[in-house]
Amino acid sequence: MTDLTHFDEHGRAIMVDVGDKETTLRVAVARGEVSMQPETLARILDNRVAKGDVLGVARLAGIMAAKKTPELIPLCHPLLINSVTLEFTPDPIKPRVQIEATVRVSGQTGVEMEALTAVSVAALTIYDMCKAVDRTMTIDNLRLVEKLGGRSGHFINPGESTR
Amino acid sequence: MTDLTHFDEHGRAIMVDVGDKETTLRVAVARGEVSMQPETLARILDNRVAKGDVLGVARLAGIMAAKKTPELIPLCHPLLINSVTLEFTPDPIKPRVQIEATVRVSGQTGVEMEALTAVSVAALTIYDMCKAVDRTMTIDNLRLVEKLGGRSGHFINPGESTR
Amino acid sequence: MTDLTHFDEHGRAIMVDVGDKETTLRVAVARGEVSMQPETLARILDNRVAKGDVLGVARLAGIMAAKKTPELIPLCHPLLINSVTLEFTPDPIKPRVQIEATVRVSGQTGVEMEALTAVSVAALTIYDMCKAVDRTMTIDNLRLVEKLGGRSGHFINPGESTR
Amino acid sequence: MTDLTHFDEHGRAIMVDVGDKETTLRVAVARGEVSMQPETLARILDNRVAKGDVLGVARLAGIMAAKKTPELIPLCHPLLINSVTLEFTPDPIKPRVQIEATVRVSGQTGVEMEALTAVSVAALTIYDMCKAVDRTMTIDNLRLVEKLGGRSGHFINPGESTR
Amino acid sequence: MTDLTHFDEHGRAIMVDVGDKETTLRVAVARGEVSMQPETLARILDNRVAKGDVLGVARLAGIMAAKKTPELIPLCHPLLINSVTLEFTPDPIKPRVQIEATVRVSGQTGVEMEALTAVSVAALTIYDMCKAVDRTMTIDNLRLVEKLGGRSGHFINPGESTR
Amino acid sequence: MTDLTHFDEHGRAIMVDVGDKETTLRVAVARGEVSMQPETLARILDNRVAKGDVLGVARLAGIMAAKKTPELIPLCHPLLINSVTLEFTPDPIKPRVQIEATVRVSGQTGVEMEALTAVSVAALTIYDMCKAVDRTMTIDNLRLVEKLGGRSGHFINPGESTR
Repeated sequence: MTDLTHFDEHGRAIMVDVGDKETTLRVAVARGEVSMQPETLARILDNRVAKGDVLGVARLAGIMAAKKTPELIPLCHPLLINSVTLEFTPDPIKPRVQIEATVRVSGQTGVEMEALTAVSVAALTIYDMCKAVDRTMTIDNLRLVEKLGGRSGHFINPGESTR
Repeated sequence: MTDLTHFDEHGRAIMVDVGDKETTLRVAVARGEVSMQPETLARILDNRVAKGDVLGVARLAGIMAAKKTPELIPLCHPLLINSVTLEFTPDPIKPRVQIEATVRVSGQTGVEMEALTAVSVAALTIYDMCKAVDRTMTIDNLRLVEKLGGRSGHFINPGESTR
Repeated sequence: MTDLTHFDEHGRAIMVDVGDKETTLRVAVARGEVSMQPETLARILDNRVAKGDVLGVARLAGIMAAKKTPELIPLCHPLLINSVTLEFTPDPIKPRVQIEATVRVSGQTGVEMEALTAVSVAALTIYDMCKAVDRTMTIDNLRLVEKLGGRSGHFINPGESTR
Repeated sequence: MTDLTHFDEHGRAIMVDVGDKETTLRVAVARGEVSMQPETLARILDNRVAKGDVLGVARLAGIMAAKKTPELIPLCHPLLINSVTLEFTPDPIKPRVQIEATVRVSGQTGVEMEALTAVSVAALTIYDMCKAVDRTMTIDNLRLVEKLGGRSGHFINPGESTR
Repeated sequence: MTDLTHFDEHGRAIMVDVGDKETTLRVAVARGEVSMQPETLARILDNRVAKGDVLGVARLAGIMAAKKTPELIPLCHPLLINSVTLEFTPDPIKPRVQIEATVRVSGQTGVEMEALTAVSVAALTIYDMCKAVDRTMTIDNLRLVEKLGGRSGHFINPGESTR
Repeated sequence: MTDLTHFDEHGRAIMVDVGDKETTLRVAVARGEVSMQPETLARILDNRVAKGDVLGVARLAGIMAAKKTPELIPLCHPLLINSVTLEFTPDPIKPRVQIEATVRVSGQTGVEMEALTAVSVAALTIYDMCKAVDRTMTIDNLRLVEKLGGRSGHFINPGESTR
């Protein structure tokens, strides 16, 4: 059984030494959903055209949060992100908005945490902007979808569709 | 139908003026779950005693993130938090860890976003510390449980148990 | 001749003591212009409708920067902003975009620096987003337009139109 | 006509992928002016010797702001600056202070935004330190002067003198 | 024996609730020393006049760090500092530089941590600026000198001279 | 006599150009002590087992502070830390806790400031958590112990034991 890598042999939290890892292109894709009342989703979609752009604000919040990941997650390494993109897919049936973030880096550590943080903060921002009309929204199923590059190879989360 | 308050009449994003709101004690409670493999949860619980304290690190990350909320959520007001507490409840049956954050403030805006951000970053930190052994963890059902103080009165999310 | 207040009698930089100042409502309005090629402005205005929203991104950057003012300006006091709004007025004749920021606070110091910082970072963001097509843009005439509240009373910059 | 690079084909804001760009030495020089009352400039110059050093404080603020650029400009890439220098040239005739910032990096993106941000925050800091004696100061003609390195080659802003 | 207040009855780290504490004027004074080679101190004192101002840079770093205290110390409350001042006293006999920071606030918690953090970061900054000529400098005897306001009354560290 | 490198020939503060320096593995080790009442140390050691983990919180604070070093020390370069570890050695005889931080990087500048900052903020965090029971704690003898890599070769502080 592999050990939890963020602790040394005495159980002390450490920032793992990545000095021996190869500098390669690494990509991570994460997804999550914000479930809401049908009226809330309708309002987000209406506003996008006519008035205020909830998803545009959430997108920027997600991109900026990806850059802040090492400040938020205590044992995360700082790194120089190559790119971040966020995509929002409204689903009026559920009703919910799916958020997908893709982060790329040429570095010695993966960018799973950056992608997950981007989705997470984008989702919280949607909550913030809609909370006056719907306090029962939930953020669900935040997960890593795909991971590429580095020693551990290509990971695809079972059951996820990728491009 | 109430409007989305973070946009003005032209649909432009604004930080809402809270100058007219009363300064009162405000409390918010949020919850979320990190679902994982049974071995992952076992390892977290084992480590807590013998080796490294995953939940202790996640707790600090959550507390520090609550203080960073206005940096993360674009239209959130800065405020002076009175207190933050996080509680972790492992559930070996599911298996998962439930996270609950309670934030208090004497101020002119509520602290829902601070409580949700604390749970969210604590959950991401658990993911970070366990991702070497379990990449399929998910963060689920992040929601506001209770909210007290301010114009909108006492809100309890239907179906939630509170203390 | 009034002294520079950010230095003590020995010429040492200090953060001035505002403990004796009254807590009142304070408002500051600042303006500045981004001058550019006519094609650049046309592209910003086109994009707003059809493709990407340069001014929407700049607005959020300005709002978030207002909250960061005390981190940027060394001797500035931290304070709890009540609201920030930014308005963009394209002027195809010059051609340029005028930016106006209004910041409100109930506090012991004014918010001139917050308003000026908001305009400044919004202008830099426009530069960033358009620099691939126009490197000769300039940011001009960043100034305080109006200031209300506090010991110094109501200031209107001579020659400025206010609402 | 080149497109605005910070939006994808659907008009969504993105942090552009710089993974394919070459890592080269890149330099950017930016300039701007703070115009003021003659007495204000006199006081800055007097103080430099006898009492408090307005320009010294502004210099540090500019250097520290250059490091914060990716936190301020939403779609800016994080990078590891090699050096930042700021130079202040008082001009008693106008009267004004000219600010010039030079930033160097070995990286995959240019440092225009870092140089412009350094000048901008240095100028705001001068405003902050002198605002008690002169509220009508303006920050003018903030522009990119020179840019070296990267695919786009050597750019010199027409009409600018360089060293 | 009073308990460690930053843990609850189960030993979990918490940000203590200060909601019941009185809002009063609170002052804290902290001191520390940077001990160094005689040539290093000579160079700092020479430079102050003729060339670069080590202590001026350290002063600004200390002031800005005081504002960052709640980001650095995990369980510290955010607060709105009224003022920060730093004083440096070179002592050529030891040889060393003594640093004293005074922080004031009208708030519900004390500012000991802000004063200690200001001295600490000012001392680190002196180290940084002189480390090319003296790697054996030490930072010593960082302590709270005086504390005023709040439930615990007036504290003076035994053996410290105050003003 | 070597010059203070953080000033140019006119005495102006600069961020030194490290573009010509080699990218090599660099390591720095720093140490410092928190001296305290015997009861305070007893409580820290008791708590570690039974209740709250003062040193665990201080460790995380130190690791996170190492990442923030370029934000705190004005002329410090940003860099991508490979690893940070902190070790705490309680000494009931003195009584005190010794803190040692080791930081590694592959980069163009050393990590002395990161290691010293980590020890410093870990020490301040111990102070914060114990200040309710002991206000007379002092932070002492913060110094660089060892430095490896880069032009200046292997430095060991005379009189320090290393591993």
